[in-house]
This record gives sequence, C-alpha cells and structure tokens, in this order.
Amino acid sequence: MELIEKMLNGDKRACARLISSVENNSNEAEDIIKTIYPHTGKAHVIGITGPPGAGKSTLTDKLVKLLRKKDLRVGIIAVDPTSPYTGGAILGDRIRMNDLALDPGVFIRSMGTRGYLGGLAKATRNTVKILDAFGCDVVIIETVGVGQSEVDIVKAADTVVMVMVPGLGDDIQSIKAGVMEIGDIFAVNKSDILGAQRTATEINMMLDLSQNLERRPPVVMVTASQNQNIDKLLEEIEKHYIYMKENDILEKRRKLNIKRELVELVEEELRKYVIKETENKGEMESVTLSLYTKETDPFTIRDILLSKIK
Amino acid sequence: MELIEKMLNGDKRACARLISSVENNSNEAEDIIKTIYPHTGKAHVIGITGPPGAGKSTLTDKLVKLLRKKDLRVGIIAVDPTSPYTGGAILGDRIRMNDLALDPGVFIRSMGTRGYLGGLAKATRNTVKILDAFGCDVVIIETVGVGQSEVDIVKAADTVVMVMVPGLGDDIQSIKAGVMEIGDIFAVNKSDILGAQRTATEINMMLDLSQNLERRPPVVMVTASQNQNIDKLLEEIEKHYIYMKENDILEKRRKLNIKRELVELVEEELRKYVIKETENKGEMESVTLSLYTKETDPFTIRDILLSKIK
Repeated sequence: MELIEKMLNGDKRACARLISSVENNSNEAEDIIKTIYPHTGKAHVIGITGPPGAGKSTLTDKLVKLLRKKDLRVGIIAVDPTSPYTGGAILGDRIRMNDLALDPGVFIRSMGTRGYLGGLAKATRNTVKILDAFGCDVVIIETVGVGQSEVDIVKAADTVVMVMVPGLGDDIQSIKAGVMEIGDIFAVNKSDILGAQRTATEINMMLDLSQNLERRPPVVMVTASQNQNIDKLLEEIEKHYIYMKENDILEKRRKLNIKRELVELVEEELRKYVIKETENKGEMESVTLSLYTKETDPFTIRDILLSKIK
Repeated sequence: MELIEKMLNGDKRACARLISSVENNSNEAEDIIKTIYPHTGKAHVIGITGPPGAGKSTLTDKLVKLLRKKDLRVGIIAVDPTSPYTGGAILGDRIRMNDLALDPGVFIRSMGTRGYLGGLAKATRNTVKILDAFGCDVVIIETVGVGQSEVDIVKAADTVVMVMVPGLGDDIQSIKAGVMEIGDIFAVNKSDILGAQRTATEINMMLDLSQNLERRPPVVMVTASQNQNIDKLLEEIEKHYIYMKENDILEKRRKLNIKRELVELVEEELRKYVIKETENKGEMESVTLSLYTKETDPFTIRDILLSKIK
C-alpha cells in the first residue's frame, strides 16, 4: 500500500489518513495493521490520566515540549468526550496545543469517546500502533480517568501517570481511589494551590498501605501551568521505563496487553455473529415481547439462543 | 426458594441477601432472577447522573424524602467507585443518607464500580429487578455520568435526570456534552451560585439546537442542599413517566433494554467460552510470544482462533 510506504517514510499526511482508516474500522483497517505490525513495539507509550479538571492537557503540553528538547519524536492521542451536537471533539484545551501542532516532530490526534461503539479501546490501540510505526519515540495517550472503558484504554500504556489535584471534592476523591492502582507515577498538579501538600500526603499514605505493588510509585508535585517540576516528572517517567526494561516487566506487561487485545478481537467477531444470527432469524421481536410480558426470563432465552448458535 | 418468598412478602433482610447473591453472580443468581422475573416491570426506574461534584446524592436524598411523603416505596442503587485499598465503597455522601436508611419504606444499596469485571451493568440491572419485585414503586439509580459503562447503566432507566452545576470547568463541560443526549430532564443544581442561570441557558440552547429529540427535555433549576424546587423536579419526572406511558414510548424503551440485555448475556457466555478454549489449548503463551516478537499480527491470530472455535 502506497500510503503505508509514505507513512513509514515520515509523511505526516499519510499517517493521518491511515489513522482515519483504522479509526473508522474501514475495510482496509485490518490490512493496514497487518502490514505495519512488524514496525511496532519501539515507542514508549505513556498514559496520562486523572479526573476532569486536573490539568492533564497542560501537563501533556509541557511534557511534550521537554521531550522535544531532547529531540524525541512525539505522538499525542487525546481521548476526549465528543459532543453529540457538534459531532466532533470539543477543542477546549486542545487549542492551547496549537504551537505543538505546528512542530513537525509532534503528531496530535484527538479522539471522541463516542462513535467507536464498543471500540474506542480498539481504535486507540491501533492509533498507537500507527504512531509507533511512524517512528514516534514516545506516544502519549491522554484520557479522563473515570469510567471503566477509559481506564481500560490507559492500561495499555507502558507507563501510567495519574494526575491529581487538591480540592476537587469527595466525589472526585473516590473516583481517584477507584483507579489509583493503575498509576505508575503520581503527579499532584497545581501544587501552588492550597491543599496540594495534603493531597500528596494522602496519596503517599494510600500507597504505603497498599500491599500488592511491584514497585512503589513516586509522587511528584508539579505546577504544569508554570512549567514547574515537569523535568522531575519526566525523569521519573524515564526511570520507570528503564526499570520496566531491566526487570523484564515491560515484556510481561506488553504480553498481557497482547492477550487482552486478542481476546477482545475474538469477542468482537463473536458479537457480530450473535447479532447477525439473532437478527437474521427474525425471532428477536417475538422473544423481546415474551420477555416484556414476563412470559419467560432472559436466562432461559439466552440458553435457547446459545443452543441455536452452537 | 424460601428467601425469595420472604423477599416478596416484604422482608428487607431477605431482599438484601438476594441482592448480594446476584451481585456476586453466584450459582443461584440465575435461578433467583428466573423466579422473580414475573414480578418485575412495575417500578418506575429513575436514573440520576451527572459529573462528579454535581450534588447527585443530596438531590437523590431530597427527592426520596418527597417520594416518601407520597407514601411510595423507594429503592436506591448508588453506583460508587470503590477504593482498591479499603476494598469497599467510600461512603462520603452516603453517610448523609443515614436517616433514609432507617426508613422502612426505603431500601439503599451501594455498589462499587469494580469487582463485577465487565459486569457492573448486569449487577445493577439484576438489583433493579429484585427491588422491583420487592415492591418498590420507584427505583433510583444514581451514578457518575462519565465513562461509557456508567452511561450504559443509566440508559436502562425509564427516566434519566441529568444533574448539572455551574462552573465545573471546560473538561466537565465537554463530558456533559458527551452524555447530554441521554437526559430526559435536566436539573441545574446549586442554582444559588454564580453562573447557574448561564448554565441553564447553555443547556437550553444546546437542546434547542438538537434535532433528533422525541421530546424536548425540560430544564429545572434546583438547590438540593436547600430543598429548593425539588417538588418541581419531581413533577417533571412524573410528567415524563406519564408521557412515556401514554405514547407507548415506555414499552419501546423497555423492549430496547431487554434486547440489549439479551445480547449482553449471550456475549458473556461466548466470552467465557473463548477464554476457556484459548486457555485450555495452552497455546496462548506461544501465540502471545509470536505477537510480541512481531512474527505475526493480531488479526491473523484472531482468525486462527476463530476457525478453531467454530
């Protein structure tokens, strides 16, 4: 495929078009991934996550600028909620990244969280592969760290940075706790505002209590808007990557992700098959009616459908 | 089953034990649902969702008190993120609901978002069924409205109330937009703080722009903490339910949810089958290695696995 050839040679537009293809799960999507797959596995994939309002975009922006100073090629995948009204990702913070977008060594892609029905994780994973094959040394996935699907996405990264901020209320604190175990590094952002030290202390306490951590995640205080301590954070990210490589943990983690991907791919095909089977037989309507009127129950119907499929 | 008999006769402890059984997806879970299924379909299921910090719990609390004045039996399912460190749901706002918990006409259940791997929606759905069979006139599902799985949960309700608050920043605003289309009624909470009117206006503008709404959702300004306008909100909730029933939309929506549930149940079984098949054959390790070393690609392996399953 000519487009792939071009992309592998560093053509940004070709790269963008290939990403669109895999995002839309087009007919060529599988062929694209099959062809580029041998060129993947080189990039350091960093997940940046945290509650809404934690300042993830600003932090990403500053991190990328630092990576660029080291002359590293960077890909950014911003997984943003989409508006059903505009049909596209709401720009918001993305706009601030405009100067990055002009940098030839940076590739930015915004993704909505809708429109990939059941497939946002897949679309993100395949976009990572393309950026990896494209030659990005680092690929950053930035996503809101709430919701199971969003957490699943960031789990696919080699290094996960959890961004926290002081004073977001009880609700946020509990969300934070729910996804805390996926953080390899914790960044307390807006460290200039009241309560930041307390937030850091709380995180440290929780981490100290945690039993089953392979490696105790460091907690770094940063102020992204003022570019403070971003170098320290990057240092911790690099240290984590080296640690992963030296202890064969990178290989283990990547293999785990490969398995997860595989099971999901098989499931996806089976799901299509189930939907086709039930729709084709045209019996879905009568079955639904009998459930609606409580003549039968969902488990009985499930077993009938399964026996027909097998 | 004796426990079911007791529950159907109004025994709260029996109800709690049955919910635990279906939550844990125990061996008896399917039998329980099969037995109680004919007793379901009577409750008005209300979903209360919105971004973290919107004051959903306080609003639920006040709504329930109003429903209790009408002598209605109420079930509350609070879908809360769980801490991996405490192993349980963080109480937070739940504590404030203590007086409700003492009311014999109210049944409260907190659910974590973890520990039901791939199955929070299922656990919630089955808990709704038990509370419905238990005789609750109204079942409220309160959940954070971010994340695909959380949105899926609330979609199963008859009436969805989206709770908004002014001034939660850009990030929140975009999340809000991402899930806006599932709201049947919008409540702008904390209407006493600055910017509330503006938030209401923004929501109204978005709703006016939206093309494909069966019914234009009303926007109600409330201040839950001061019990302001909760009666107005309840009125809108009741109006929506009557509208749904009178226009056969309730039947349509419930049938759609039945179909979704059925497809998910079939998928769940197939997934178990896939995992068992791949693990049993013991070839998962060698396959993962060949993918890790990029000798092959995930789609090729997927097709091989599929052909073996079929």
